[in-house]
Amino acid sequence: MLNYKLTIRYDGSRYFGWERQPGRETIQGKLEAVLREMCGAPAEVIGAGRTDAGVHAEAMIANVHLDTPLTPDAIREYLNHYLPDDIAVDEVKVAAEGFHARYKAAGKLYTYTCCFGDRKPVFDRKFCTVLDFEPDLDRMRQAAAYLIGEHDFRSFCTNPNMKKSTVRTVDSIAISCRRDRIFFRVHGNGFLQNMVRVIVGTLLEVGKGTRAPEEMPAILEALDRTKAGYTAPARGLCLTRVDY
Amino acid sequence: MLNYKLTIRYDGSRYFGWERQPGRETIQGKLEAVLREMCGAPAEVIGAGRTDAGVHAEAMIANVHLDTPLTPDAIREYLNHYLPDDIAVDEVKVAAEGFHARYKAAGKLYTYTCCFGDRKPVFDRKFCTVLDFEPDLDRMRQAAAYLIGEHDFRSFCTNPNMKKSTVRTVDSIAISCRRDRIFFRVHGNGFLQNMVRVIVGTLLEVGKGTRAPEEMPAILEALDRTKAGYTAPARGLCLTRVDY
Repeated sequence: MLNYKLTIRYDGSRYFGWERQPGRETIQGKLEAVLREMCGAPAEVIGAGRTDAGVHAEAMIANVHLDTPLTPDAIREYLNHYLPDDIAVDEVKVAAEGFHARYKAAGKLYTYTCCFGDRKPVFDRKFCTVLDFEPDLDRMRQAAAYLIGEHDFRSFCTNPNMKKSTVRTVDSIAISCRRDRIFFRVHGNGFLQNMVRVIVGTLLEVGKGTRAPEEMPAILEALDRTKAGYTAPARGLCLTRVDY
Repeated sequence: MLNYKLTIRYDGSRYFGWERQPGRETIQGKLEAVLREMCGAPAEVIGAGRTDAGVHAEAMIANVHLDTPLTPDAIREYLNHYLPDDIAVDEVKVAAEGFHARYKAAGKLYTYTCCFGDRKPVFDRKFCTVLDFEPDLDRMRQAAAYLIGEHDFRSFCTNPNMKKSTVRTVDSIAISCRRDRIFFRVHGNGFLQNMVRVIVGTLLEVGKGTRAPEEMPAILEALDRTKAGYTAPARGLCLTRVDY
C-alpha cells in the first residue's frame, strides 16, 4: 500500500463539484470509481480542496493509498484511459506516507476569468463569465488591496453555519486584462466556501461603480455575508495551483 | 431590402454542419430561424462555404438580404441575443448589392489543430484531435510542398460524384508546433469536400512514417480518393478566414 500524489485537470462544467455525492457525477466520484476498478478495492481520493459545481481545475492535487503492482506512469495511463475526456491526470507520483493533500496544502492559487464587450465568448464560453460592462481595473485594484493580509473573511463565506475559524490570509490578488478578458489571480493560504467567487463579485461591483473601494474594510469588519457583493458564477473559476 | 455581410464564429461540435437540413441543428438553420423572427419574413443566409458536421469557424462570412429598420449594430445585437451561446456574430455590415459570400470568396484559410503526448486535452478537447504519436514536422513539410500550387485534388475529395472541376490552388500549408499542439494552416482559393481533412490525414501518415513525402505526386496524379490518407476528424478543423 503506497501513498500516491495525483495532479488532476478538469472541466467542471457538467459535474456537481469535486466531492463524492451519491447518485451525482463528481470529480472525486469519477476518480474513485476508476481506481476501484483498477485495484479491485475501494480507494479514497483526498483532494486539496473541494471545488464547487461548475468550477474547473488546472492542477488539483490529491492523494490516495493504493495497493497495485502498476507503476505510477501506468496508473496515470490507466486513469486517463478510463476517465471521461473532461478529466485528465497529468502526474502520478509516489508520495511520503504522511503526505495529505488537504492538510499539507500551504497555499492555493485560483484564477477567475471574465469577459466584457461585444464579442460573445464561444470557444471558451464554459470558462469565463460574461460582463455587461467594462470594469474599472484601478478601482478594483484599490479595493483588492484592503483584502490582502490576514483577516476574518466571514463576510465572504457563503456557509452561514461555519463553526471553525473564518480567518484566512490572502497573499495577493492580481488583476490583469488582455483584450476583452479580465483575470483575477487570488493567492492565499486557504479559502472559505465560495470565498473567491464572493471576492470577485464584490470587486466587480466596485469595478462597475456601484460600490466604493473604501467600503472594503467595513465589509470585512461586519462579519456578515449580506454586506459583501454577489457570488460570481462558478464557470469563471479555476483552481490553478496548490502549494506544499 | 439591403444586402448585409455577416462575420460569424461558432463551435460546430453539436451541429450537423453549416448547411440547413430539415429536422437537424445547423448553423445556417439557426441563423435563418433567428432572422426570420427578427424580420417577420424568411431570410436566406449564404455562407462562404459549407463546413461539415463538427467543424468550427473563427470567421465564417455570409451575406443575407433583409428588410429591417434595424441598424447593422442592432442586427448584430439581436442575433447574439437570440442565437445559442455556441454561435456568435462578430460583425454586421451593409454590403454592396452584388456581394455574394460564396461566389466572391477569393481564398480561405483553414486551421487544423492536433495534440500529441501525455497531456489529455481537457479545456479545448472539442477543438483538437489527439494523436497517439509525435509526427515528424520536417517530413510533413516536405510532403506538403508537393501540394502547393494548382492541382487536380480529386484524390483529396470525399465526394465521389463530384461533377464540376476538382482543380484547386493551394497557396500555402504552414505547419507549426507549440508545446504539444501542432497546427496546420492551409490557404487556398477553394476547397473540395473534406479536402483539408484528407490533406491533414495524409500528412499525418507521412509524419508518422507510414508514408513517404515522395508519394505525394503519385497520389495527386491518381485522381483516386483511395490513394490518399485518412480523413482527419472534424473537431480539429476551423475556418479561420475568408478573403474577398
